[in-house]
Amino acid sequence: MNLLVSRLSKHWLFTSLLTVTFLLVISTQSFAQESTSRIPTNIELFSAVNTAWMVIAALLVFFMNAGFAMLEAGICRTENSTNVLAKNLIVFCVAASAFFLFGFRFMFGDSENSLFGQVGFFVNFIFPSKENLNPFPQGFEYIRSFWENRSFAAIFFFQLSFAGTVATIVSGAVAERIKFWGFILFSFVLVGFIYPLVGYWVWGESGWIANVLNFHDFAGATVIHAVGGTAALVGAWVLGPRDGRFGYDAEQETFLFERDTERFEPCNTGFTTLGCLILWLGWFGFNGGSTRFLDYVPHVITTTMFSATAGGLAILFYSPLVTGYKVKLSSIINGLLGGLVSITASSAYVDVLGACIIGAVGGILVLIGEGLLEKKLLRIDDPVSAVPVHLFCGIWGTIAVGIFAQSFSREFSSVYPVTQQFLYQALGCSCVVVVTFLLSLIAWVLIGLSLYALNLNESGYIQNTSNNVGIFTAARRGLRVTLEDEKAGSDATIIM
Amino acid sequence: MNLLVSRLSKHWLFTSLLTVTFLLVISTQSFAQESTSRIPTNIELFSAVNTAWMVIAALLVFFMNAGFAMLEAGICRTENSTNVLAKNLIVFCVAASAFFLFGFRFMFGDSENSLFGQVGFFVNFIFPSKENLNPFPQGFEYIRSFWENRSFAAIFFFQLSFAGTVATIVSGAVAERIKFWGFILFSFVLVGFIYPLVGYWVWGESGWIANVLNFHDFAGATVIHAVGGTAALVGAWVLGPRDGRFGYDAEQETFLFERDTERFEPCNTGFTTLGCLILWLGWFGFNGGSTRFLDYVPHVITTTMFSATAGGLAILFYSPLVTGYKVKLSSIINGLLGGLVSITASSAYVDVLGACIIGAVGGILVLIGEGLLEKKLLRIDDPVSAVPVHLFCGIWGTIAVGIFAQSFSREFSSVYPVTQQFLYQALGCSCVVVVTFLLSLIAWVLIGLSLYALNLNESGYIQNTSNNVGIFTAARRGLRVTLEDEKAGSDATIIM
Amino acid sequence: MNLLVSRLSKHWLFTSLLTVTFLLVISTQSFAQESTSRIPTNIELFSAVNTAWMVIAALLVFFMNAGFAMLEAGICRTENSTNVLAKNLIVFCVAASAFFLFGFRFMFGDSENSLFGQVGFFVNFIFPSKENLNPFPQGFEYIRSFWENRSFAAIFFFQLSFAGTVATIVSGAVAERIKFWGFILFSFVLVGFIYPLVGYWVWGESGWIANVLNFHDFAGATVIHAVGGTAALVGAWVLGPRDGRFGYDAEQETFLFERDTERFEPCNTGFTTLGCLILWLGWFGFNGGSTRFLDYVPHVITTTMFSATAGGLAILFYSPLVTGYKVKLSSIINGLLGGLVSITASSAYVDVLGACIIGAVGGILVLIGEGLLEKKLLRIDDPVSAVPVHLFCGIWGTIAVGIFAQSFSREFSSVYPVTQQFLYQALGCSCVVVVTFLLSLIAWVLIGLSLYALNLNESGYIQNTSNNVGIFTAARRGLRVTLEDEKAGSDATIIM
Repeated sequence: MNLLVSRLSKHWLFTSLLTVTFLLVISTQSFAQESTSRIPTNIELFSAVNTAWMVIAALLVFFMNAGFAMLEAGICRTENSTNVLAKNLIVFCVAASAFFLFGFRFMFGDSENSLFGQVGFFVNFIFPSKENLNPFPQGFEYIRSFWENRSFAAIFFFQLSFAGTVATIVSGAVAERIKFWGFILFSFVLVGFIYPLVGYWVWGESGWIANVLNFHDFAGATVIHAVGGTAALVGAWVLGPRDGRFGYDAEQETFLFERDTERFEPCNTGFTTLGCLILWLGWFGFNGGSTRFLDYVPHVITTTMFSATAGGLAILFYSPLVTGYKVKLSSIINGLLGGLVSITASSAYVDVLGACIIGAVGGILVLIGEGLLEKKLLRIDDPVSAVPVHLFCGIWGTIAVGIFAQSFSREFSSVYPVTQQFLYQALGCSCVVVVTFLLSLIAWVLIGLSLYALNLNESGYIQNTSNNVGIFTAARRGLRVTLEDEKAGSDATIIM
Repeated sequence: MNLLVSRLSKHWLFTSLLTVTFLLVISTQSFAQESTSRIPTNIELFSAVNTAWMVIAALLVFFMNAGFAMLEAGICRTENSTNVLAKNLIVFCVAASAFFLFGFRFMFGDSENSLFGQVGFFVNFIFPSKENLNPFPQGFEYIRSFWENRSFAAIFFFQLSFAGTVATIVSGAVAERIKFWGFILFSFVLVGFIYPLVGYWVWGESGWIANVLNFHDFAGATVIHAVGGTAALVGAWVLGPRDGRFGYDAEQETFLFERDTERFEPCNTGFTTLGCLILWLGWFGFNGGSTRFLDYVPHVITTTMFSATAGGLAILFYSPLVTGYKVKLSSIINGLLGGLVSITASSAYVDVLGACIIGAVGGILVLIGEGLLEKKLLRIDDPVSAVPVHLFCGIWGTIAVGIFAQSFSREFSSVYPVTQQFLYQALGCSCVVVVTFLLSLIAWVLIGLSLYALNLNESGYIQNTSNNVGIFTAARRGLRVTLEDEKAGSDATIIM
Repeated sequence: MNLLVSRLSKHWLFTSLLTVTFLLVISTQSFAQESTSRIPTNIELFSAVNTAWMVIAALLVFFMNAGFAMLEAGICRTENSTNVLAKNLIVFCVAASAFFLFGFRFMFGDSENSLFGQVGFFVNFIFPSKENLNPFPQGFEYIRSFWENRSFAAIFFFQLSFAGTVATIVSGAVAERIKFWGFILFSFVLVGFIYPLVGYWVWGESGWIANVLNFHDFAGATVIHAVGGTAALVGAWVLGPRDGRFGYDAEQETFLFERDTERFEPCNTGFTTLGCLILWLGWFGFNGGSTRFLDYVPHVITTTMFSATAGGLAILFYSPLVTGYKVKLSSIINGLLGGLVSITASSAYVDVLGACIIGAVGGILVLIGEGLLEKKLLRIDDPVSAVPVHLFCGIWGTIAVGIFAQSFSREFSSVYPVTQQFLYQALGCSCVVVVTFLLSLIAWVLIGLSLYALNLNESGYIQNTSNNVGIFTAARRGLRVTLEDEKAGSDATIIM
């Protein structure tokens, strides 16, 4: 009997030993070296890797600001570069404020409304404490479960870097003629209200476009790029072209065809190229950070890479056929960027071959789009081609999801056949673009009229103050710097 | 009886099964795919994430060198940019040598001395071998336990990137007139001895400021920025202004008020803006890498972001009120940087609102500080505003810990009430600044005198060799390039 | 008896409790917060960290493109910078295509052949699906086991970033005079065939150099830098110098010593310095990403840091002794880069002291190499010193493995005594260089002849069309832009 007990005790000992052995296997080497360490739990580790990657991706996206700044400063004329740079530097500050005060809650707050998220004033950041390492403010259960295992601050920061991008896209299209404060105000409205509204439709908890149409926009070809591009288009249209572009005379406020079209060549191709490469780098964070599954990151980055490659090469071969054996550096750059925008909607859904086709079409689309904007009917002056790159390629990329998406991707939950998905993608994108167009127009005009009314411009702009100018003319005058300033270059005078 | 045994054996089997099942859960999926892999232990994984983030943060801080280089090259006059760039490039090499030879052991070596760490010659790096993956040289138990689960090389590299920053801060303030070798020598002394001494007081094992005053400086507002800023202030003061600045005549070595003040405008705003954005990016590594808890990183990065934002926006609104509706790009940049320096001491202790206030005050402080340095009594010529940005905001940020720190932060171990903490912060910071001031002064003067004595400057500088010049005048002459070189721009002649 | 059973049951209970407790310890905190989360397995976590670091390292290497672009644009003459930038931008696209279509399979495909890998057309990327998260295409078992726990896309992307570097190295040496399309074609051949061939010998499954000679090249001093440098050398030699360099007259195609040697000074030192710092940053990814053991990364990065430091400082002290107290910024930059290339072969095998010696020798070697290329017998015009930096330091770094490698490194499997290893390193490197030289020569000449034959250059280059020109002359004429274009700067005319 005693024998039995002792034997069983041995069994018990043996079992315990097995358990303890395993515990030792886990902490073995460390006991020698790091005996004081608490053994971290699996979930903590998993959160750590996910959060670290999310932060790094957000930093890459944040750095895209430097890319946009360099791109635009290099393309604009020397005498305006300081103004352009100031806009690009401050825009992230404005976007951060607007997103913190209104946008984030409006776009990502829990809501059963299919049209907009929570209406409320600023995000209630809760400080992480010893008791609660990852506190979520009330009303953000949806993003908490969507971005499983990430901390609230990481999610907020990541989304903030995206919101900053939307505003930056606009800055290039309105460069060299917009008033500093006009741009600041519009950026605030765009990031605080317009972008979160349509963004909610696609990425919010109960957004109607995502829910009704099974609309898929992986990293924001519609939500970020088409929205930014549309706002840029409206801005460039309301402002009118730079003095001399398309024979536009900013004094007469009309197109004078007899005038020589001045040349608007990039002033610093070094900056432009650097900007393109920084943007390219940032896009890996933009797309790579948008997947919830870490094991998808390398795939997403590879498709992004090949779409850009295809965009650049497409221009290299297509451009000579159209423009007589000349390939301009700026075309290659815009082709690359077109490829990058185009793959944004689908980098986690398509394979490498699909990515190449999407990118190549996107690259060529930029060249076609540039020509389109210069047509006599439109004559939209978009110095950095923000509209072709971000709007046209954003639309193409969104539609391309319907054509090339693979149903076995973990990120893509297909429920419709190809044709139907294709139509739904087109429909969803159109709704976003149309609404953004209208809201941007209202915003631009109201801001322009306010500035016109406030008559902030005391440096003698309003020479021809015929009292009965139309709303659009008044808005334009309110938004534009004086002709003097435009000719001298905004740098020479003031930044405001 | 046998039945009993078999039943108990089953129990035993069952228990074992449970253990084994768990082992299988851990390695399940992998058996199919990666059957050869050794199962890594939890501690290895935890170390891996921590170490990887530490390395990435260090790389971001390292890249701040490019930020400083661009910022300074863009602000200095064209003809001096090569010289400025060369200084910024080589300074990290000098800092690395000094830190490896003396500084690291002096600052972070185990020591029971409350005044300084280990005195000794170079760090005994032990090569990681198959047996010992993370060997720590003797005498570094303190940092080993502080930076739990990080390898020695990672800790060293991270701290090295910080030390490099201290030296780089100085470079901007003394630009355009200092001899290349004078700067090199001072950088070596600063990083090898002065910075580690005061650094030990705050971050070392038994440093008196940390221990006696419960002084908190999260990522180095005092240790890095105030120290670098003070050394910069002394350097700019000993050297005197650039020829023409404040009516200073470098030949007569005196202020001639009748002279026209030449303009000292930034020569390349593209570089300046790029530099600011790179620094901004780097700061996320600077602050984000300074927390020992990975789950605090997103919070730290968010407060850093909003402090910079507040600094930039504060300038945008404050500047017009003071200088007549003009906002200069360089003011926005310095406001942003001021916000970043200010939050350095407290980014893990404060919430977003606190960060905004700290940043806004910091931004405005830079503008005020710039005005202060130009006052007739001081007339310190600091081309890149290194003193207002790093010294003034460093002090403000350190004191702000006493006001805004939240006691429930895991990084902040509060023991005193607010007022007392506030005073202790101010006291600790003052001690560091005063000691750095005195030691920097001694270093600058001794280096100046040595160069004066060695008469390395054979290109005919010492025309007015009246033998009885004062120590300061002699030091200044030893440190400054010849007037000829200064006028031509140091680039035109030589880099030395 | 019942008592006994119950007691034993308790034992059993106790044992189970211990197991369950441990399970709870693992998931404890999470249950409160993240109860819905699946507990990830250890292997998933391990893969996640490894893959994330691999992606980040690849992105740093990718960003080296921006470094090369800035470095070259800054060193070349203003009127050629657009062309240089366009080459640097498009080269990654070309490299990506070539590597995807041929190179990757040729270099890393499973093969028992000691001379080359799989011959086949493009990589069969398999889309990651819900069932198979990390699908490997058939025929890539070797890299799968070598890069344990990394996904296929991550490995491909990482290797792609390396392949892109090889092509970029060439671009600097042939700048300012090569036809755009000539460079594109050569890049395709280099990355698609030449680099993978010799690369297979060292890094492929059964490559003869690695297997027969126990050849070690950690991150590619031979495979990347010596190969790129050799291709650059051949290109610069075939093309001949720029018009005016070494008294070369591009019209007469001969050296006219009576002609004044025009000055070829860097046009933008800001770009050059920025380029150097970006490359320095990228190298941490280049070397740090090349170790399979995450815990080795900090060590690798530290040796890389100190080698660069030593290279820069060596120039700082060596240069004055040779060139009369002058230190040029470009020399410091090339010294730094020389240090970085030199440590590439051994950063995981050597200690800090070894790294310093390797870097210092490398830095000085660049200066000596630059002088060598300018000797009358060679007169190779290499605008950015690509040959001294990448070829000479690549060879030195490879040989240095035999001298400084430490046998207890986990990355280094030493089997031979020092002298023998040294000889084997030299032998292996020589073979790679000689073969690359011959294949590059064939490629350059064939491409030149093709372009000559196609007579793509319709802008009137071939004035002196004496029919019987030699092969080399014809190739040179085919590759070079017209003298007119060269004088005007390739920017002024066209990019092709």
